[in-house]
Amino acid sequence: MKNEADNKKSPSSNKLFPMACGEGPYNYAKNSNYQKTGWDLVKRLTSEKISKKLDVEHLISPGNLFRIADMGCSFGPNTFFAVQDIIEAVKSKQNKSKLMEFQVFFNDHSANDFNTLFRTLPSERSYFAAGVPGSFYGSLFPKASLHFVLSSYTIHWISKIPREVQDQSSPVWNKGRIFYGSSKKVEEAYAAQFANDFESFLRARAEEVVPGGFMTLLIPGTQNGANLLKCTSIAISELLGSSLMDMAKEGLVDEAKVDSFNIPIYYPSSEKVIAIVEKQGWFKIEQIQEIARPMIQQLSKQDIEKYALFVRGWAEVVVRDHFGVEIVDKIFNNFTEKLMKSGLLSDPSIAPAVDLFVLLMRTNN
Amino acid sequence: MKNEADNKKSPSSNKLFPMACGEGPYNYAKNSNYQKTGWDLVKRLTSEKISKKLDVEHLISPGNLFRIADMGCSFGPNTFFAVQDIIEAVKSKQNKSKLMEFQVFFNDHSANDFNTLFRTLPSERSYFAAGVPGSFYGSLFPKASLHFVLSSYTIHWISKIPREVQDQSSPVWNKGRIFYGSSKKVEEAYAAQFANDFESFLRARAEEVVPGGFMTLLIPGTQNGANLLKCTSIAISELLGSSLMDMAKEGLVDEAKVDSFNIPIYYPSSEKVIAIVEKQGWFKIEQIQEIARPMIQQLSKQDIEKYALFVRGWAEVVVRDHFGVEIVDKIFNNFTEKLMKSGLLSDPSIAPAVDLFVLLMRTNN
Repeated sequence: MKNEADNKKSPSSNKLFPMACGEGPYNYAKNSNYQKTGWDLVKRLTSEKISKKLDVEHLISPGNLFRIADMGCSFGPNTFFAVQDIIEAVKSKQNKSKLMEFQVFFNDHSANDFNTLFRTLPSERSYFAAGVPGSFYGSLFPKASLHFVLSSYTIHWISKIPREVQDQSSPVWNKGRIFYGSSKKVEEAYAAQFANDFESFLRARAEEVVPGGFMTLLIPGTQNGANLLKCTSIAISELLGSSLMDMAKEGLVDEAKVDSFNIPIYYPSSEKVIAIVEKQGWFKIEQIQEIARPMIQQLSKQDIEKYALFVRGWAEVVVRDHFGVEIVDKIFNNFTEKLMKSGLLSDPSIAPAVDLFVLLMRTNN
Repeated sequence: MKNEADNKKSPSSNKLFPMACGEGPYNYAKNSNYQKTGWDLVKRLTSEKISKKLDVEHLISPGNLFRIADMGCSFGPNTFFAVQDIIEAVKSKQNKSKLMEFQVFFNDHSANDFNTLFRTLPSERSYFAAGVPGSFYGSLFPKASLHFVLSSYTIHWISKIPREVQDQSSPVWNKGRIFYGSSKKVEEAYAAQFANDFESFLRARAEEVVPGGFMTLLIPGTQNGANLLKCTSIAISELLGSSLMDMAKEGLVDEAKVDSFNIPIYYPSSEKVIAIVEKQGWFKIEQIQEIARPMIQQLSKQDIEKYALFVRGWAEVVVRDHFGVEIVDKIFNNFTEKLMKSGLLSDPSIAPAVDLFVLLMRTNN
């Protein structure tokens, strides 16, 4: 149980990448509305499955306690909304004669801002709250102690950049780029790392979730068979890469620094997710669904700036960690300009961003 | 379950009083060696009782999981030592064929520095860790979900200063003093508040601890029938009060400010603790013992300064909150000088500080 080996690390720096915190305009809590609307889209699907398929009475017998964990919860407030939605769905099924208790575990790595999470917990909550620090690729809870696991916008963060992608002597070296969109080999290396991490995640949760228990995952992904460079999320990261290369050409950042930088994210297709889950057999797929995020055709300048802020919300910490705090504003200003000029967000040839809604039930295996 | 009503509040300011944190020389982690040695004195007693009286197999049946909570743990490192000692004592009793799991809940109010607690968790720990924010006077855990509760140097903090002690029109108004040592009526008001708080604490824990489960309390107290002004802990607080009055006379602090300041601590005798526990009947007293902290007759200047730092370690936040951050250094410097001159720490007529070691077992009531 060496829980402190952490997930959001770059292999070179061994640093943690929590979501940006503090009071600034770029912090995660202020720019996580995208994640919130993602959950809003799937909460009905989750509630329906709870209603039809979750055998609450049997699961918690002989006790009266239902335990929920949010893996990679960050520091709020999205996690509070999601947890509340799940509790309401479970409560609507309960035997009215027995008043059920709920205990909710908020997990994230130990560099997460738990102080803010705890200070902003809803005061009128109907559950016992606890924070659990540590990497969700390892064991975090006692055996068969959870009834419902939730993880939103976390699984796509890979635990490290594949070695060959950073190796100058390798044919897979990702020179001049920061993402895998334009190289099949780099994409494969990223996919292998994603599979490895996701398997670790499932292995750990398989120990912790009771048979019959649920796991809801919300994963930013891509459509099956999509042209990667035509997927919004991937095109956006490639655009950030080319913005960085522009800056390198102007002498504003070191080109070698751009060569050694790669974004530790992989956007899986539902086929890939299904293959990994089914290979292991610990969880049965109750539902998997692509949820396309609508694209707006007529975007105002403000809309694009808002989108750039959302990108900065998740990318800020990895960029800052690699390039240094002094250049971060310039990098994102340059990116915002480039995003404006590109017309990418309203380009009809670009496929909308896709979230994968995955609902799993723990088997008896 | 409105958990956020918090314990360490002054009734006037409604602020929380966590132990001083941060990197400064006065922080709790650096000045909590006194608390550490207190636990060292009682860990053998705790281990013996676990060995003789705790029916581990029965308690955790049919599962294999032992749950421990440290109520008011602050942010380390003492809590880690204490928890480890308890786990080792329980492990030494376990059936070797079944590998027991441990889950430890670290509780403190939500203003506690959980980020530091989580970052400094022992990496090689043999337990699942969780943090639980909220007042321990209320419900924090599901029913019958804990096997062992621990609380060290916390219960003596009362949740508020009794109203009459702060009321200028009351005969119990504590003018010119900041503690209850020299007034029977003030002492009674403090004792009533302590009884009230301790009952709330026991009521909440009675719900949470399984029948047969243990609770170890380490409470700074006084000897039965002691002359209060001759008890180290009380004499020290009275000395801080008279140091503040000196400053008021010199015009360095406002006298009305001293009049309205009272330290929210009560040092109970074992008789008082026994009476409260027995009145409720939820817990059986397995052991209660006064542990005198040895006094050193020949104290060096450094010893006295170290003791003054220990006092500042626990008193800093309440003093700062009431008098303001700009005067805090001056107050404690003045106190340290006064402590030197007083000879209090080596006065043979002053009774040594006493810790009450209380070991309770949850009854079937």
